[in-house]
Amino acid sequence: MADGEKYVYEFGAHTDGNAKMRELLGGKGANLAEMSRIGLPVPPGFTIATAVCAKFTAEGGKLPASVERQRNAALANVEKQLGRKFGDRKNPLLFSVRSGARDSMPGMMDTILNLGLNDETVNGLSEATGNPRFAFDSYRRFIQMYGDVVMEVHAKDEHSADPFEEILMEAKKSAKAKFDNQLTEKQLREIIEKYKDLIRRETGNTFPQDVHQQLLGAIGAVFRSWNNQRAILYRRKYGIPSEWGTAVNVQAMVFGNMGPDSATGVAFTRDPASGENVFYGEYLIDAQGEDVVAGIRTPNPIAHLAKDMPKVYGELVAVREKLESHFRDMQDFEFTVQQNKLYMLQTRNGKRTGFAAVRIAVEMEHDGLIDKRTAVGRIAADSISSLLVPIFDGDAKKKAKAIARGLPAGPGAASGKICFSAARAEEVHGRGERALLCRAETSPEDIRGMLASEGILTSRGGVSSHAALVARQMGKVCIVGASALEIDYGSRTMRVGDITMKEGDEISIDGTAGEIYLGSLPTVPSEVNQVLNGTMDGKKSQTYGTYAKLMGWCDEFRKLKVYVNADSPTQALAGLRYGGEGIGLTRTEHMFFEGTRIDHMREMILADSVADREAALAKLLPMQREDFIGIFTAMGGKHTTIRFLDPPLHEFVPHDEPTQRDLSKKTAIPLERIRARVEALREFNPMLGHRGCRLGISYPEVSRMQARAVFEAVVHCKKNGIAVHPYVMIPLVGFLKELRNQVDIVNEVAKAVSGESGMEFTYHVGTMLEVPRACLRAGEIAEIAEFCSFGSNDLTQTTLAISRDDMGSFLGRYMDLEIFTQNPFATLDVDGVGELMTIAVERAKKTRPTITLGICGEHGGDPASVKFAHTIGLTYVSCSPNRIPVAKLSAAQAAIA
Amino acid sequence: MADGEKYVYEFGAHTDGNAKMRELLGGKGANLAEMSRIGLPVPPGFTIATAVCAKFTAEGGKLPASVERQRNAALANVEKQLGRKFGDRKNPLLFSVRSGARDSMPGMMDTILNLGLNDETVNGLSEATGNPRFAFDSYRRFIQMYGDVVMEVHAKDEHSADPFEEILMEAKKSAKAKFDNQLTEKQLREIIEKYKDLIRRETGNTFPQDVHQQLLGAIGAVFRSWNNQRAILYRRKYGIPSEWGTAVNVQAMVFGNMGPDSATGVAFTRDPASGENVFYGEYLIDAQGEDVVAGIRTPNPIAHLAKDMPKVYGELVAVREKLESHFRDMQDFEFTVQQNKLYMLQTRNGKRTGFAAVRIAVEMEHDGLIDKRTAVGRIAADSISSLLVPIFDGDAKKKAKAIARGLPAGPGAASGKICFSAARAEEVHGRGERALLCRAETSPEDIRGMLASEGILTSRGGVSSHAALVARQMGKVCIVGASALEIDYGSRTMRVGDITMKEGDEISIDGTAGEIYLGSLPTVPSEVNQVLNGTMDGKKSQTYGTYAKLMGWCDEFRKLKVYVNADSPTQALAGLRYGGEGIGLTRTEHMFFEGTRIDHMREMILADSVADREAALAKLLPMQREDFIGIFTAMGGKHTTIRFLDPPLHEFVPHDEPTQRDLSKKTAIPLERIRARVEALREFNPMLGHRGCRLGISYPEVSRMQARAVFEAVVHCKKNGIAVHPYVMIPLVGFLKELRNQVDIVNEVAKAVSGESGMEFTYHVGTMLEVPRACLRAGEIAEIAEFCSFGSNDLTQTTLAISRDDMGSFLGRYMDLEIFTQNPFATLDVDGVGELMTIAVERAKKTRPTITLGICGEHGGDPASVKFAHTIGLTYVSCSPNRIPVAKLSAAQAAIA
Repeated sequence: MADGEKYVYEFGAHTDGNAKMRELLGGKGANLAEMSRIGLPVPPGFTIATAVCAKFTAEGGKLPASVERQRNAALANVEKQLGRKFGDRKNPLLFSVRSGARDSMPGMMDTILNLGLNDETVNGLSEATGNPRFAFDSYRRFIQMYGDVVMEVHAKDEHSADPFEEILMEAKKSAKAKFDNQLTEKQLREIIEKYKDLIRRETGNTFPQDVHQQLLGAIGAVFRSWNNQRAILYRRKYGIPSEWGTAVNVQAMVFGNMGPDSATGVAFTRDPASGENVFYGEYLIDAQGEDVVAGIRTPNPIAHLAKDMPKVYGELVAVREKLESHFRDMQDFEFTVQQNKLYMLQTRNGKRTGFAAVRIAVEMEHDGLIDKRTAVGRIAADSISSLLVPIFDGDAKKKAKAIARGLPAGPGAASGKICFSAARAEEVHGRGERALLCRAETSPEDIRGMLASEGILTSRGGVSSHAALVARQMGKVCIVGASALEIDYGSRTMRVGDITMKEGDEISIDGTAGEIYLGSLPTVPSEVNQVLNGTMDGKKSQTYGTYAKLMGWCDEFRKLKVYVNADSPTQALAGLRYGGEGIGLTRTEHMFFEGTRIDHMREMILADSVADREAALAKLLPMQREDFIGIFTAMGGKHTTIRFLDPPLHEFVPHDEPTQRDLSKKTAIPLERIRARVEALREFNPMLGHRGCRLGISYPEVSRMQARAVFEAVVHCKKNGIAVHPYVMIPLVGFLKELRNQVDIVNEVAKAVSGESGMEFTYHVGTMLEVPRACLRAGEIAEIAEFCSFGSNDLTQTTLAISRDDMGSFLGRYMDLEIFTQNPFATLDVDGVGELMTIAVERAKKTRPTITLGICGEHGGDPASVKFAHTIGLTYVSCSPNRIPVAKLSAAQAAIA
Repeated sequence: MADGEKYVYEFGAHTDGNAKMRELLGGKGANLAEMSRIGLPVPPGFTIATAVCAKFTAEGGKLPASVERQRNAALANVEKQLGRKFGDRKNPLLFSVRSGARDSMPGMMDTILNLGLNDETVNGLSEATGNPRFAFDSYRRFIQMYGDVVMEVHAKDEHSADPFEEILMEAKKSAKAKFDNQLTEKQLREIIEKYKDLIRRETGNTFPQDVHQQLLGAIGAVFRSWNNQRAILYRRKYGIPSEWGTAVNVQAMVFGNMGPDSATGVAFTRDPASGENVFYGEYLIDAQGEDVVAGIRTPNPIAHLAKDMPKVYGELVAVREKLESHFRDMQDFEFTVQQNKLYMLQTRNGKRTGFAAVRIAVEMEHDGLIDKRTAVGRIAADSISSLLVPIFDGDAKKKAKAIARGLPAGPGAASGKICFSAARAEEVHGRGERALLCRAETSPEDIRGMLASEGILTSRGGVSSHAALVARQMGKVCIVGASALEIDYGSRTMRVGDITMKEGDEISIDGTAGEIYLGSLPTVPSEVNQVLNGTMDGKKSQTYGTYAKLMGWCDEFRKLKVYVNADSPTQALAGLRYGGEGIGLTRTEHMFFEGTRIDHMREMILADSVADREAALAKLLPMQREDFIGIFTAMGGKHTTIRFLDPPLHEFVPHDEPTQRDLSKKTAIPLERIRARVEALREFNPMLGHRGCRLGISYPEVSRMQARAVFEAVVHCKKNGIAVHPYVMIPLVGFLKELRNQVDIVNEVAKAVSGESGMEFTYHVGTMLEVPRACLRAGEIAEIAEFCSFGSNDLTQTTLAISRDDMGSFLGRYMDLEIFTQNPFATLDVDGVGELMTIAVERAKKTRPTITLGICGEHGGDPASVKFAHTIGLTYVSCSPNRIPVAKLSAAQAAIA
């Protein structure tokens, strides 16, 4: 670390940073600087840069000397600006110490307030403010936070209470105080002594009285908190690299807990759950910020502040407008009122539900705050899915009647078994059942349980409580502050009025309306889907209007075509409703499982001779032809890709004796032969076995039948005036000669069908690129292939040598160790699989510049993967119907970026 | 085909071509030209270039007009030179028409002799030669060949006789003639009429009387024969591309069948079976060349010609010397003596056994004919294996006593079941048993059966018969012309004296000595191996001397190091005996199967907790340490690579109930839990499952135990004054972080062991490159890996998406269709797998220029793959002990090329 480099940045009267310096200062630090710059009332302080985080860890938990020097200088400047000294016995300067990563990670890392208090300065504070109760309450809070975060005095396990809280509760109980602020100075002093005893008992160390030691300890704890379990889990879920590190913000304290003329609050410039353009938030009088977020007391809605503190409220409304017009995005900000003076402690782009993200972006464009391009670019592509998930059936809701209401904090419909702890929710989820986490409030320890739940319900806390915040970001259905619910962890029950629910009982929550129901309610398609399938008038749905506008913009910007993976006319039509422009993948094998077809398929597989096989295939031919006619008709002339038989034959034959007997009766093939054939088809590694084009090469009559079905369907459609654009796709090609073999068959059959029918038609032949070798040989493969589609699932399996079906045994470990930052079957491994794709694209285009290239694995509906597809110049992505909107939005974002 | 291009090349008085033009003229055509140039007596003729072959096929079996014009001109020149006319009634010019590819494919394609005879010209020939019997015998032969080759009148199946032969036999029988040349003109005329009837009956066409039609038919048949089944099989075995095509040689006929002053023969400048420097060959008086090769009459050894035709023999000895000094390689040549005048019909580099190849090259260097470089470059690298295969035990041979002798045509020892047909040999081989093909003679139809046999034994034919020729090239043990054997196909028996052997009985043949034994004789190591393991004095073995000299040269030239794959001290020592310079792969898992270890291994796998697992591992530690001490001691300071546990755990647990019960008793683990765990370990695609470094990452205690065993062994050896150079290799790495995880463990354990023992030691850490992703990311992997070894087997499986264990179901089909020209698990797929390797080498060297790179899959002992390893700049190849000499020779050849 060069001595000359700057690692500490001031804000306040003198400000070094600005909003653009997120990477260095973290989001919080950069925005504190920016707010200072635009004249908002920010208490002064300084930010220790993110780069120091890794150094701190590398040096075994010490700050480099150069950082120490800069920090001391910045601290002196704050003292000078405020005319108070850190550690001063008379009028001590206190600090908050907060983490702040590049991307906001709410509640994931640690914060310490009121730092600088000790047995002496607390008296100074008491005298300077003339408010001893406030001073000792602050000291009490500080010891509690410091004891927890820095000295690591925690609850024994998740069923025990926090030991500091226990002492506090005990004291409140014997003082008959309902709220913290009803405790007297004397009572607080007693609590403080008990806290210090607790720390001594638990750690063998005394609570530090040296304020500089306190500050160093707090800074260290923040840096360490970057690598705590919660933070790691969070980063994993959101794909944040551990290399980024956190900054540390040290800021002069202001106090919302100095009496009834003080307050603290959190607000959003718009509703982060629904996206509605209303001033939104909540506050507590005589409290510190953490009280709001932790959900310990249920705060008041922000509108009430107009009555409680009219002047401050007016200032806040002005702040809201200034923030939106300056940052041009919905802001989530924290404020404190100290003796009627407003201070801004933080602002950031507010986390929002998918629902809200779409609505806010579209409405901000309408309001002229941002342009279409920005609107499209800003929405996390997955968000749009939340407009498509089922909602509760209105009639059923009416009949069931809500038993309670809460604040809608995550829209959507969720049903599941009541779970009163995160562990129970994980357990229920692990059994494959639906869990619904019900807590008085949630805390960062509950993250895993929240992930495992369909929805989250709390009886306390507001829309900025931990539960609401996290649920918002996870896209979970959520209701908070349903205060009518009485949750009793001891008896594992929940009561509302005279209704008692046990753990394991089913309930339903409507996170859009904030309503709670007994039992599991039936669902209906989302509004958007109702409009798309014609059961609702589009003009009646605000959501649909928003959706349609956004999709329109996406179609304007995107360069990638978006196709659907569809194995039936129903799926094809679903794809078209979502705006699919063609079919990128029809898996013909899926058709062989329906009804009696599987019998003919089995007959074919069990055939001893080509003649027998052809006889069985002759029975499948008309059925498969009907399939294709159905799909072609649904697509009405759009690009339709049909992939030939792909899976190993083993998947089609019966493995249990009763079905084998049954098949023997049906086909008159001796049971012994069926058994022997099934055994012969068994493979050590079926994924790498006799499948894909290897089948069509071994049994050319199968490919001939499939080609005939395609072309006879083409002829049928053309005769009936239906336009057809068929693309025949050969799977699992690794060698040019494999493709040539199959294409020869296809061409030969096409010629025959054309001759028989006296009808000319066009078609295209191509292949999947799903074998590493095929990617490397794409140059020669493109000599024959008119199009290629990456089968990114199989390509990932082979390139990584990882069987998706068997990955379960080590995936968890790999995620824990951050060997995988994301599941490579969900999001393309750009460095490995992606490079093979890049090589293939280059080589294929060199041979055939006009070649059509696409992707039809499940990655086709994954935002990051779609963006990669755009980057390497593919023609299309193809995905399941309900991922089409996500793919379109991702494609548009890629084009914009 | 541009009209200006030259497609027909003359030889004789005027010669267009030379020996260097093999690609265009084929081997035969080029050498006919060359022999003409150096003044050997070659009958004139012309060669139609190989390039015409593909054109002929493409144009549906027609010669382009430009070729036709050039052919007519060349034919006219031959007529002018010899003063005779093609089709002339008085003194007709006759031609032979022969194929001739770039590489010799003996007996694989068709040949027609005596072309130009018809019902009229036969009389002209009769008058011109004054030898009607000769003329009609020639006509008879021509019709037979033409009927077979061009008009496709064949035997109905492999058990029927050839229909022409049947007529001939019948005639000989009724004429009481033992040999063809005892038939009278009249008898021959009758046979000719019967032949013509046969053709008419079988084909509906008459035998063509127009000589030009005859010539066109013959040329077409030769071109077509390039794609017959035998030729395709042959090309597949020897990796000859089908694109090469064959040339057609049209040459004026000379006659070895003009009476007792005429002869035909085949000779080698050295013994092609043993390599000995003696004039070698055989001839028949009054016969045509095909009679010798086909093995119909057993010819006389060439030395007898000194008595039969002393002048001609003297000329031949001169020719032998001229050929060797001109071509500087052992020549295989055909000659014909027509009325005491010698004609040369062909010369080529003689095919030879591996044994002979090595001896000839080494001796030619000694004689100053070639230099070391040429000697090394000339030996097919696999040849050297034939010096290493077991031979029959001398004592056992003495006791068993030979029941018959024949000509040694393929050295080595073979035992197996008597099979009288190729089909039977294939069947026996298919059952996994050893077949020994016993035939009166073999023909090209027998190739598959010869491939399937351990050895080949014929009762007729000489060392230039089909059987000898093909066996030589296949490296099969072979004895020909064991005339004491009477084979009766009808009764499926073989008699010698009063011993009768049935099909299926076991016999043994010593192809080095030419001796046949009853039963299956025991074998002992080859002479080379006896010398290497100290049971024979090297000075007593000519073979060992040759081997040692050649290996010495290889060590001089090669750049690649050659290591051994060894899992035990025994294998390590075997590797060292063959000159292995280190161990490239020790599979530590193989050690876990021995004795009681498997129980501890199973205990480890079944453990419920880390503590239980560590307890089981603690039992394995001392055993594994002993393994490593043994190996290090054997290697005495040489490079020793130890790979950590690789296979899925499933491979170690028992799958049958009795063994599970047994294990339950031994370990006191309930049967139910064993069953459940075995079930849980089952994988869909174990090759892509929980194995390799994934195990060491999931169970770090396993890697810790292995690292500890390695380093404690290192310490033990060092304390005992044994030098050690350990290389720890992590398998199946795909991600840098995987390697880092395991290397951290290794380093940590090394430090601990060093601390405990108070001993410093060095070691290296590296990885396998066997996952496509790892090849692509080799640049970053090399940041940590000090060495990388390509696991070419797994890399082939993943790059091609082909499971080697499951490939059987389509490999045959793929070989038939030439999708594979070779099994990619035997010879590296250079275009696919090879490119990934090339990329990896480039990237790894960029990061770490001094990195050690190798290959330790089975390809490490395959000549083509070793050469590729040299080309891309690897440091070493590692293979099983007995492949080391092959690898060394291949490496030297690569360095020379």
